[in-house]
Amino acid sequence: MPELRQDLFKNSWVVIATDVELKPRDFPINRSGAQHAIANAFCPFCEGQEATTPPELASYRQEGTAADTPGWQVRTVPNKYSAFNPEGSFAPQMDGIFTRADGFGQHEVIVETPRHDVDFHELPEEHIELVFKMLRQRYNTLAEDKRMKYLQIYKNRGLFAGASLSHSHSQMVGLPMVPETCRIMSRYYEENHACLMCKVLEEERAQGKRIVWESDYFTILCPYASRYSYETWIVPRRHTEHYGEITDQEISDLAVVVKRLLTVLMDKLENASYNIVFNTAPINVAYQPGHHWNMEITPRLIVTNGVEMGTGYHVNPVSPEIAARVIREKLGE
Amino acid sequence: MPELRQDLFKNSWVVIATDVELKPRDFPINRSGAQHAIANAFCPFCEGQEATTPPELASYRQEGTAADTPGWQVRTVPNKYSAFNPEGSFAPQMDGIFTRADGFGQHEVIVETPRHDVDFHELPEEHIELVFKMLRQRYNTLAEDKRMKYLQIYKNRGLFAGASLSHSHSQMVGLPMVPETCRIMSRYYEENHACLMCKVLEEERAQGKRIVWESDYFTILCPYASRYSYETWIVPRRHTEHYGEITDQEISDLAVVVKRLLTVLMDKLENASYNIVFNTAPINVAYQPGHHWNMEITPRLIVTNGVEMGTGYHVNPVSPEIAARVIREKLGE
Repeated sequence: MPELRQDLFKNSWVVIATDVELKPRDFPINRSGAQHAIANAFCPFCEGQEATTPPELASYRQEGTAADTPGWQVRTVPNKYSAFNPEGSFAPQMDGIFTRADGFGQHEVIVETPRHDVDFHELPEEHIELVFKMLRQRYNTLAEDKRMKYLQIYKNRGLFAGASLSHSHSQMVGLPMVPETCRIMSRYYEENHACLMCKVLEEERAQGKRIVWESDYFTILCPYASRYSYETWIVPRRHTEHYGEITDQEISDLAVVVKRLLTVLMDKLENASYNIVFNTAPINVAYQPGHHWNMEITPRLIVTNGVEMGTGYHVNPVSPEIAARVIREKLGE
Repeated sequence: MPELRQDLFKNSWVVIATDVELKPRDFPINRSGAQHAIANAFCPFCEGQEATTPPELASYRQEGTAADTPGWQVRTVPNKYSAFNPEGSFAPQMDGIFTRADGFGQHEVIVETPRHDVDFHELPEEHIELVFKMLRQRYNTLAEDKRMKYLQIYKNRGLFAGASLSHSHSQMVGLPMVPETCRIMSRYYEENHACLMCKVLEEERAQGKRIVWESDYFTILCPYASRYSYETWIVPRRHTEHYGEITDQEISDLAVVVKRLLTVLMDKLENASYNIVFNTAPINVAYQPGHHWNMEITPRLIVTNGVEMGTGYHVNPVSPEIAARVIREKLGE
């Protein structure tokens, strides 16, 4: 029996089919034989190709090796094909009845490994820790720039997640505007005098059926109004607003969680494309309570179509209760 | 120089790169060699396969031929894999802090031709007219059901537009809720005492540079805050709220426009996937002024990635001014 579920975080609805467990082969992308992998003739992220990227902004590298040479484990560079200009500021102007501004913003690439042939979840836990430390460092560095109002950390993995290079990497965009999703979180706090994510954690732990895993510091769950099949969230149980506040202990735990979870998902979903999106609090604005950072992992087994584009309502054929059970079982193996 | 543009219809921003004309081969999907076409082992929409779909709801067919047999030109059937249940009603209930409802809704498929190997824009104009007449008929029929609050007409063409069958078809979903985009239109009217789309038409005709074509009844333009490269809107100049109000004369004109426009787009974009989304007014609710139906054609040359998913801001590498010029030139050839 299909079900409509309200998405409290997007102020929208999701259509969920509640009684079928779809196999990866049941999704049109896979049935059509389309490949999630990307073949690149040349990879600028490989060790030895440092000169083909803009000069590095930060790196963790062997002592004694120079910037923009081999010897690094994780390396951050400006995005060469950035859609944003890091110079200037956000100054909206009218253009008739429309509003425009110069495309001010910062766009960085975090290359997660010098090796081309290793997927993110195949990296050792200690290496994944380095990636999360680099993200924390770049988050806190960019947050010092008072022109930035929001930092979007994300990962595109595979063709159907919008990646254009297969070499494992994440990205960070510093934006001069605060996204609507942040306003939904603060409005919830205003109206309910409580953090929406803390309330959701409480409710999910009480209901139990969508909880995938409780690690030392994180609750892993398939959200009530999952927009994507097998969508999984990693939420710090400690009410923390900014990703930049993550501690070393939390990072160690997160690396274990992400490696095991992605290994299970990639195995179950036959190496499907996926995105990771970090939701976090706005920066350099008047303080608004109600934010609680988290990571969303969204496998891209279905291409969004005219329904989603027209109505904003996602249609998801796999209920989060089924997805959570499947992932829990695989994690227990 | 990249630019940020406010999207008045989505209450969001779009990032636009303003000075490059990308060729289809420049987009990662095409560079990777991915195929937009879908290969189906079996097609339930072909003439002779009528028994494999649910019984037809409506058809235009040769006199003397029986329902669910060959002899039709356009045929509407319930979507066999609908995510909605046409029985019941919309009755939201609390589920802890969450809200759910049975998945009430109607989901129909309009099979646009009995022939498998003809793309929508390859159909003769008179045949495309029949498709638009069928959409009008189904719109007005479904609108009589007082449980329906919004009718979403859409078309998915190609793998990257979310299609699962290649045989030319459109779909209609009858929903018990009113999408957020409708509320944005009515809020604009409340605040400005004017229809947003009428204001946009006025502004676009004054600025000129994003206008693609003025037909007898429609203005064709690339919108100011185009979310997708080569996004093109077809807007009736007559302020009409519902698609169901379209006249026969307007349908004749629309068929000419859609055939020529899609032919040019498919030629220019090398048969890329695309969606067509009809935006229209809510039904069976208290009257709210400010709606103005229109068609959005959105080529899917780029897969939405973590930026769009996290922030809601689309990044579009082709400015609408460039897209409009390119399409205008091709139309003039």
